[in-house]
Amino acid sequence: MAAEPAGAFGSCPTPAGHYDRIVLGHGSGGRLTSDLIARVFLPAFPGEVLAALEDQATVRVGAARVALTTDSFVVRPLFFPGGDIGKLAVYGTINDLAVGGARPLFLAAAFILEEGLLLDDLRRVVDSMRRACEEAQVTLVAGDTKVVDRGKGDQIFITTTGVGLLPEGRTLSISAARPGDVVLVSGTIGDHGIAIMSVREGIELETALESDSAPLTGLVGAMLEASPRIRCLRDATRGGVSSALNEMAAASRVGVELLESAIPIKAAVRGACEILGLDPLYVANEGKLVAAVAESDAPRVLAAMRAHPLGRDAARAGRVVSDHPGMVTLRTLIGGERIVALLAGEQLPRIC
Amino acid sequence: MAAEPAGAFGSCPTPAGHYDRIVLGHGSGGRLTSDLIARVFLPAFPGEVLAALEDQATVRVGAARVALTTDSFVVRPLFFPGGDIGKLAVYGTINDLAVGGARPLFLAAAFILEEGLLLDDLRRVVDSMRRACEEAQVTLVAGDTKVVDRGKGDQIFITTTGVGLLPEGRTLSISAARPGDVVLVSGTIGDHGIAIMSVREGIELETALESDSAPLTGLVGAMLEASPRIRCLRDATRGGVSSALNEMAAASRVGVELLESAIPIKAAVRGACEILGLDPLYVANEGKLVAAVAESDAPRVLAAMRAHPLGRDAARAGRVVSDHPGMVTLRTLIGGERIVALLAGEQLPRIC
Repeated sequence: MAAEPAGAFGSCPTPAGHYDRIVLGHGSGGRLTSDLIARVFLPAFPGEVLAALEDQATVRVGAARVALTTDSFVVRPLFFPGGDIGKLAVYGTINDLAVGGARPLFLAAAFILEEGLLLDDLRRVVDSMRRACEEAQVTLVAGDTKVVDRGKGDQIFITTTGVGLLPEGRTLSISAARPGDVVLVSGTIGDHGIAIMSVREGIELETALESDSAPLTGLVGAMLEASPRIRCLRDATRGGVSSALNEMAAASRVGVELLESAIPIKAAVRGACEILGLDPLYVANEGKLVAAVAESDAPRVLAAMRAHPLGRDAARAGRVVSDHPGMVTLRTLIGGERIVALLAGEQLPRIC
Repeated sequence: MAAEPAGAFGSCPTPAGHYDRIVLGHGSGGRLTSDLIARVFLPAFPGEVLAALEDQATVRVGAARVALTTDSFVVRPLFFPGGDIGKLAVYGTINDLAVGGARPLFLAAAFILEEGLLLDDLRRVVDSMRRACEEAQVTLVAGDTKVVDRGKGDQIFITTTGVGLLPEGRTLSISAARPGDVVLVSGTIGDHGIAIMSVREGIELETALESDSAPLTGLVGAMLEASPRIRCLRDATRGGVSSALNEMAAASRVGVELLESAIPIKAAVRGACEILGLDPLYVANEGKLVAAVAESDAPRVLAAMRAHPLGRDAARAGRVVSDHPGMVTLRTLIGGERIVALLAGEQLPRIC
C-alpha cells in the first residue's frame, strides 16, 4: 500500500500480548502490525535505515541518494468505485516516495496470480497500472509473474517497489516534528476505506462515494515549493490518520492534539462510519497526507495545498505539543478530549 | 526467484494458443510464461528496459547506474533440504543482480502472510533471510507485511526486490552471445528442483540431495576477473538450463548446441528424473549459471570457475552457432540430435 509500514516496516512498537499465530490484525497497520515488526523483523535486521520506520528507505547508490519503498497489495474486491488494485499498487508506492520528498522514477511489479484468474481481469488491472504510471510519470522497468494453485491465493496480489531520487539536503522525517508545529491534513478522510466497505458489505450510500486513490507527487511538490520548513509528511493509508500521526508522535517524541471539528470528512463517510461502527480516524485513505509544518509557514503551505486539485479541502487539523509525547489526542465536537490510540485489532481487512 | 523472468519479465515470446484463464503453466518460466508476458505485460509497458527481458533492469538514478530486479517466491514446502523460502528469496534476487554484473547492495522484502501461520515458522524464515543477507553482504532496508484470510494464501509469500550498482562500461546481456562463443555451465544441474520434488512427492533418493541455493556474486566476480570477454550470464532457475539458453538464443539471434555428455548432473538427480519422467534440462536450479564466453577466453574462465567453491563442477556444455537462430539443440548420449524447446506446460509448480 501507500502502505504505512512501507519504506521501513513502519509503526511504533507497542507490546500487544501473547500470540503464536498470525491473525488478520497483524496486517491492520495498527498495534499488532507494530508489534510483529518489533518482535520479528527489527531484531533480525537491525540496520538504522529499517529501524527509522519511514515510509521509504534512503540509501546511497554510487553518488545518488536513492529512496526505496516496497508494498504488497491484497485489496479485495479487485475493482471498486474510483479504482482497482492496479491503480492502488502504482499510486500507493509512488506516494511513499513522494512523502519522503523523493522524485519517483521507476517501478518494479511482481504478480502472484491464482490459477483460474480471468485473463480479462488481469488485462484490466495491468491497463490501469499503465495509465497510473503515465499519469505519475514513472516507468515500470522490472516485473515477475508467479502462479499459485486454486485456493492458495486470491485472484491477484501485486507487490510494487518504487525507486526515487532524493535531492541533497532534503530531510523530511517522521522524527522531525517539533512542539509548536501545525498539523495539516490534505483533504477529506476515510473515502478509500468506506468506498471499499460499501461495495464489500453492500451498503447503499446516499451519495456515491469513490476511493481517493491518487498520486501525491504534485501536491507534495507544491507544498515544498511553498516552504522548506515542512518537517514531516506521511500518507494516511492503512490504519488511517490515526496510524500516521501516532507513528509521527512516537518517532518525534511529541504529542499531537487534533480538533475534531477541523478535520474534513464527507457526510457520506460520516454516515457510513456510524452505521458500521467505525472511527473515521482509523479508516484508510489512498490520496491523502498529513503534515507537520513550522507555525510560521503553515498559512503559506495551506494556501499552496488548497490551490492544488488534490488539496482543495486541506485544513489545519491540530498541533504538535510537548505534552504527552508519543500520544495523539482529539478534542471532540462536544468539547471532551480523548486519546486516539493505535488501532488495537483489525478494522477493515485487506483494504489495500 | 533468481527468477528467470525477473529483471524484465523474461522469456522470448512464443505464441501458445488460446486461453482465457490463468493456468499453472503461466508460472512455469517456459512458453506459457513468455506468451503471457508478450500478450499482457509488454504491450502495456512498452519501454526498452522491460522489453530487453534481462534478469535485471538497468536504469540511471542521478549519476549512478542502478540495477533493479524483483521476484515473488511462492515455493512449497516452506522448508526443504538445503534451504527454505527465505534463503531462496534473498539469493534468488541477489543472483539476478550478479548475472548482470552488478554489485548487490540493498534488498526490500514484502511478506504476504496467511492468517493462522505459526509465528515460529515466520521467525525461522526471517532468521534464514538474515543469515543469507549477512553471507551475501547485502542490507535489507525496506519491508512490508500484509495478512490475508485463511484459505486465500499459502502460509508465506515473499517478494524480494534487489538494488545493485553496475560499473560503467559493463554490458553483460542475453542479446550479446555470438557464434563461436563457448557455453559454460557452473555445476551440476537440477539439484534444487529434485530436492523440492523429493520432499513433496515423498520419493526416497539413494543419496541425500539438497537444493543448490547459493549466492553467485563471488563466482561471477571471479569469472569477470578472469575475462572481460564474457558476453552473457544467466542463472538457470525456473525453467532450468533450457529456459536460460532459449532466452539467450532468441535475444542474441543465435543457435546453441549442447552436448549431453558434457552437462554435469548428479546420479541421484538423473535417477529421480527418470522416475518422475522429467528432463533435467528443464529442472530449476538456484545456485547455477550458464555463460556465453569468447572462445579464446573460455579456458581461463573455466579455470577461474573451477577454482571457486560454487564452480567446482563447471563444464564446457556446448557452443553458440550461427545455424538455427533462436533454437537450442542437444547432441544426445546415443549420438542423436534433438531440439530443446521452451517448456510447453508446467513441470514443477511453485518450485521457487
